[in-house]
Amino acid sequence: MSMLKGSCIIGQSGGPTSVINASAYGVIDAALKNPNVTQVFGAEHGIKGVLADRLFDMSQEDPAELELLKYTPSSALGSCRYKIADPDVDDTDYKRILEVFKKHDVRYFFYNGGNDSMDTCNKISKYMQKVGYECNVMGVPKTIDNDLFGTDHCPGFSSAAKYIATSCMEVYQDARVYDTGMICVVEIMGRHAGWLTAAAALATAQGAGPDLIYVPEVAFDMDKFLADVKRIYEEKGNCMVAVSEGIHYADGKFVSEAEVSATDGFGHAQLGGLAALLADAVKKVTGAKVRGIELSLLQRCGAHLASLTDIEESYMAGKAAVENATAGISDKMVGFERIMENGQYTCKTKLLNLTDVANTEKKVPLEWINEEGNGILPAFVDYALPLIQGEPTLPKGNSLPRFAKLKKVLAK
Amino acid sequence: MSMLKGSCIIGQSGGPTSVINASAYGVIDAALKNPNVTQVFGAEHGIKGVLADRLFDMSQEDPAELELLKYTPSSALGSCRYKIADPDVDDTDYKRILEVFKKHDVRYFFYNGGNDSMDTCNKISKYMQKVGYECNVMGVPKTIDNDLFGTDHCPGFSSAAKYIATSCMEVYQDARVYDTGMICVVEIMGRHAGWLTAAAALATAQGAGPDLIYVPEVAFDMDKFLADVKRIYEEKGNCMVAVSEGIHYADGKFVSEAEVSATDGFGHAQLGGLAALLADAVKKVTGAKVRGIELSLLQRCGAHLASLTDIEESYMAGKAAVENATAGISDKMVGFERIMENGQYTCKTKLLNLTDVANTEKKVPLEWINEEGNGILPAFVDYALPLIQGEPTLPKGNSLPRFAKLKKVLAK
Repeated sequence: MSMLKGSCIIGQSGGPTSVINASAYGVIDAALKNPNVTQVFGAEHGIKGVLADRLFDMSQEDPAELELLKYTPSSALGSCRYKIADPDVDDTDYKRILEVFKKHDVRYFFYNGGNDSMDTCNKISKYMQKVGYECNVMGVPKTIDNDLFGTDHCPGFSSAAKYIATSCMEVYQDARVYDTGMICVVEIMGRHAGWLTAAAALATAQGAGPDLIYVPEVAFDMDKFLADVKRIYEEKGNCMVAVSEGIHYADGKFVSEAEVSATDGFGHAQLGGLAALLADAVKKVTGAKVRGIELSLLQRCGAHLASLTDIEESYMAGKAAVENATAGISDKMVGFERIMENGQYTCKTKLLNLTDVANTEKKVPLEWINEEGNGILPAFVDYALPLIQGEPTLPKGNSLPRFAKLKKVLAK
Repeated sequence: MSMLKGSCIIGQSGGPTSVINASAYGVIDAALKNPNVTQVFGAEHGIKGVLADRLFDMSQEDPAELELLKYTPSSALGSCRYKIADPDVDDTDYKRILEVFKKHDVRYFFYNGGNDSMDTCNKISKYMQKVGYECNVMGVPKTIDNDLFGTDHCPGFSSAAKYIATSCMEVYQDARVYDTGMICVVEIMGRHAGWLTAAAALATAQGAGPDLIYVPEVAFDMDKFLADVKRIYEEKGNCMVAVSEGIHYADGKFVSEAEVSATDGFGHAQLGGLAALLADAVKKVTGAKVRGIELSLLQRCGAHLASLTDIEESYMAGKAAVENATAGISDKMVGFERIMENGQYTCKTKLLNLTDVANTEKKVPLEWINEEGNGILPAFVDYALPLIQGEPTLPKGNSLPRFAKLKKVLAK
């Protein structure tokens, strides 16, 4: 293995999470301490910052502020949703990246993101190999969607799951307070995979969660949905439902989009999301008091409810990326392996090939979804419960969050 | 003062809060220990439980579970929105209440709620006086809306304010993560008073909150709103807005309702709330990426973010109600008086006449709102900041909330 010496870049990409900065801190902290890393740069807005040569010199930051990254939601360096070209079609970006890498003697590149980001990371890694520029590239996973291939779970999922389960438990208390009954539809993120929506089952397992849960892994049937809700409402006087934003009909059409044309032939913009749409449909069928609640951005930035396990694992993923890269390994993504011994959960890192990870989606196993397609089975709860454990001691100021304040000094 | 001896009833009414059960626990705990109180009953669904003679015997509950009420959101005894008649028009309900009071020898009646509940409490108090039935009646305040007359603030407001400020700070981080800009409209509860929406200014004061805040105390002007948002978005590349659900035009029409007819002459149900509506209007004017977020029920049941100050004061209000009632006082609501000494906040209880409190609304003082009508001044932050202080040690199970489980044994 080569003993590369040079500077490193950490970039963040895709939708943020409550703990993506904990991973970035894992990279930054380990890299600043590593004798083979001469300088540590943070790219502004991910790969776009590399292309624009806008790199922050992380050694200029106050170490105490850097440590606050563990508790600061969203991507502190800035994120992007930049789709990099196929290098065989257009290698302009890659040439520019190589130019910037050479300029700053970048020998380590860490990219912190989800599926699309791992694709970017993979393409850059392969390009550098092709042109013979020595640079160890390592993907650092993050996604609330929990849909990355080959890893037991993804940093960010656990905290979002904890937010969702806690919020569902609280709404459950609220939504049954009157004797007049109510139906509540909670819309949860997840366009293609139902992991986050399944997390509502953690609330149900505590005796205070949704009666019905619908994920995109199973085709949605509006008539069956309405019948399910009506039946439970009539039985119990209340009904709570969790739905993925990505539920779709058997023909693949998203429910959120398909219904627009079905219910409104006048071309009016349909305001509000899926929760409002389903709440309206349920109201028509039951006449009940109905409320649609969209957890929206709150579920992915609710760092005040972060799982300590998630924070620690996210940091560990970033640190492992640096350790492996500086040990000479490249072209990998850090993943997690779950170890259960005597009912005790621990987690260790492993390495996955970037090529395998890029653009492969992992969905909720069908055997964790009930036969009716309207509920989540205990196997999922067993899987998710260890991930949400532990309460961090949150830094506060005035009893409000104290987030990291970075100086963001641009490298010359 | 008479030394009344007899049983007591505690009822909860109106929309729940994160800490209304802390007040109920204050009543229950103090009453169970009070030698003049022979039995402690919890009314199921407020006054409806009295009318139906459905009273829970609180002495049957496990004391440890009762104490968990301090951390359990929503009304544990069940709530109602029952409008009691004017006794001069129809005294049926009052006769029935008197009958139930006599049956159980009820000599203390505590009613835990907001404006409408204090009206109910007041009417019952006056009726009992009129018919000469000795019963000391005491209102225990609660409302996230913070709009009760004569009290410095209301139990429940502080925790909702803390939830709103924290969530705004988190969304602020998330909503500016890309370099492409975004406008975010957060809809906050408050039909007639802007206290809760003003709480978003606590986030702004921390450097991470809305650029613009609109409350119902000032008439809303759509053109000016759109111009405000456009200007800030063009200046900063991002814009975050907080709006009360109750903002209205100069003619008094709620924006959420008025726009339905204006934009849709076909009688289609307008799905989604005000946030979606304003987000749509902003999108049309700016072309920006826009997101509407409704904090919905989450803000009033988010007990995991409760203010310790609020929990303690809510308990204190319930306890004070029992102490005063058993000392012979009746026909009052417990209120709060703020004491600031050397910059130190403390709070003590005081008593207000139920007649004065019933149906009087307290609004945000106009001098706390900026001249433009789109921002909240530091005087409000000074007022609200002491109220949100302190983090409770939340009881958890599996790192999720552990709410009180009551047996709810019906009294015979």
